[in-house]
Amino acid sequence: MSTTTTDGNGRTTTMNTNPGAPWGWTDAHRAQRVAIVGATGAVGRELAQLLIAADHPRERIDCLARRPGELALDARTTLAVRALGPDADTGALAGAQLVFLCTPSEVSRTLAPRLAALGVRTIDLSSAHRMRPDVALVVPEINGHELARAGRLIANPNCTTAIAALPLAVLDRAAGLAEVIVVSFQAASGAGVPGVEALARESREAVGLAVGADRPPSPFAAPLAYNVIPAVAEVDAGGTSGEEHKVIEELRKILGRPDLVVEVTTTRVPVERCHSVAVHLRLERDLSPAEARRLLQSAPGVRVDDDPHGPRPRESAGTDPVHVGRIRAGTRGKRSLCFFAVGDQIRKGAALNALQIAAALVPER
Amino acid sequence: MSTTTTDGNGRTTTMNTNPGAPWGWTDAHRAQRVAIVGATGAVGRELAQLLIAADHPRERIDCLARRPGELALDARTTLAVRALGPDADTGALAGAQLVFLCTPSEVSRTLAPRLAALGVRTIDLSSAHRMRPDVALVVPEINGHELARAGRLIANPNCTTAIAALPLAVLDRAAGLAEVIVVSFQAASGAGVPGVEALARESREAVGLAVGADRPPSPFAAPLAYNVIPAVAEVDAGGTSGEEHKVIEELRKILGRPDLVVEVTTTRVPVERCHSVAVHLRLERDLSPAEARRLLQSAPGVRVDDDPHGPRPRESAGTDPVHVGRIRAGTRGKRSLCFFAVGDQIRKGAALNALQIAAALVPER
Repeated sequence: MSTTTTDGNGRTTTMNTNPGAPWGWTDAHRAQRVAIVGATGAVGRELAQLLIAADHPRERIDCLARRPGELALDARTTLAVRALGPDADTGALAGAQLVFLCTPSEVSRTLAPRLAALGVRTIDLSSAHRMRPDVALVVPEINGHELARAGRLIANPNCTTAIAALPLAVLDRAAGLAEVIVVSFQAASGAGVPGVEALARESREAVGLAVGADRPPSPFAAPLAYNVIPAVAEVDAGGTSGEEHKVIEELRKILGRPDLVVEVTTTRVPVERCHSVAVHLRLERDLSPAEARRLLQSAPGVRVDDDPHGPRPRESAGTDPVHVGRIRAGTRGKRSLCFFAVGDQIRKGAALNALQIAAALVPER
Repeated sequence: MSTTTTDGNGRTTTMNTNPGAPWGWTDAHRAQRVAIVGATGAVGRELAQLLIAADHPRERIDCLARRPGELALDARTTLAVRALGPDADTGALAGAQLVFLCTPSEVSRTLAPRLAALGVRTIDLSSAHRMRPDVALVVPEINGHELARAGRLIANPNCTTAIAALPLAVLDRAAGLAEVIVVSFQAASGAGVPGVEALARESREAVGLAVGADRPPSPFAAPLAYNVIPAVAEVDAGGTSGEEHKVIEELRKILGRPDLVVEVTTTRVPVERCHSVAVHLRLERDLSPAEARRLLQSAPGVRVDDDPHGPRPRESAGTDPVHVGRIRAGTRGKRSLCFFAVGDQIRKGAALNALQIAAALVPER
């Protein structure tokens, strides 16, 4: 089953949809051998869980990571994890029709082109190749149409970008974005399992519990519990953080608006899971908050939250859509608009979006 | 000792300064009988502590609250708290030369005008009278000059507003603010002791500690631990929160810019103390980030933080200045500028600012 949508510029997007799996995983997809590299990280693990939940045969899921072992997904399901040796591309991965790289950028930088050269369809979740002109950077609900002419290597966007992009694309198509300001509130799990563990340890310590002498290094620049860290990733000489550059550049590429004015502050907050964004924007054409709400309500992948004090990350954890609320007029002219959006960055910001990309592609044998 | 500063419009501000007390409390001030109404709340308690730390004689501090009792400030200092009965204005408070109202707005609404009518100098920390044209709304470093022609009743601003206003005033004087966007990250203690207790209880619960059956109502619309609540105070039919209205209107009044374009999102984050603001602005005249940094560095009440991942609320708790960092060029034209500011909202956002107002006034006998 598939649905085709056409945007205001006549671009059509065909998405596989399957009532049994919300992101459209069919029997033809299930016939593929799928490999997850970096399977023991937060995103790799979620990807494996979503595949199992979509009835992908476990014998057709290859899990790889730096260290071999077992990946316990729940009480009933454990997958074997093989070590990713130097022969990864030719040996361990050549049997797969589809590879998800949930690896650090430096690993993806060499591994992804080698896999693509071998003809293996590769979805890279790292930032290594996102801005390459010959690599499609895809949020299927927005620019899934680009998959028709994509190469073997496809990039999955930064998690904050993907979450902000979904509602922004709806407004851009309807009334043209003139200017976008994004302030992010990013969860500890954006830094993977070490981030979650650092926040948990600091939180236990803060309420007076013993945390033991074992103190693995935190991925954060400062204690995160009861704190806000006002920059995510390294900050360059001009004062902009790496995460801010990603949001600006990737948003422009995904929306197909290379000159769009985007201004960003990224912060880390003591939340376990789900990134939030406060967005203040200006449109090129008139669009009332009521119209914006109506458009967002019917947009795929978006859910409008009418709680005046929502949406919130804690309540959105483990859900698929980007939740959008606080839709209201701005004070910067009648074309200014504000909203607050929350998405599970491990799902829509990473694993779910990568699987949606895979589902939108015609399966290979 | 006093210092006089003159702004770009020729307005001069004279502030009492005293090396022994950073906010300029002199022996003449210490000769006054001071009353704190609402002394057992987070702000009233801080005010009493700051007065004691500035060597104000404890026998000249009257503490009042709804319920009588004792206010333990530290191991050595306990102040008696008298009940605030219906005769408060004439009986219990008439002996004071200076009254601080750390009371809910509904209490201040009736109490403040009655005290002012009796000739008692009254500094109201609630929102009840802030926007009255005949009441000065003062952040001493910014518009202390207004105290010269202020009446008996003076208003202390909203805590988020006071923190954002200090750096914004510096930039406004230097290059004229054209447009200001503020996204706040507000601490639990902004909702007083009940807010701190709710966050502490939820945090203990989240790490698996028993919290007991006694569960006083939280002042927040949702659980705050590991969460972000994207609106502070009630949200009106147009979608703007009460806190957002306060920041917009009070900022305009304090800066003397009644038509300034201010757009705000206020949020509550799981931080115990200190409000943060991400600010994105546009200026009327050229000002480089380096010049902005230099001006902020020499501004009274402001401290520039050059940590690329600072300033942060947890590290700023219990300090007097507004900490400003991440000063950088925006992407919205060469007159766009961004920064992140953090202030202890119980100090500069409330108790300290109120005491600075009192210190800037000529003491009465």
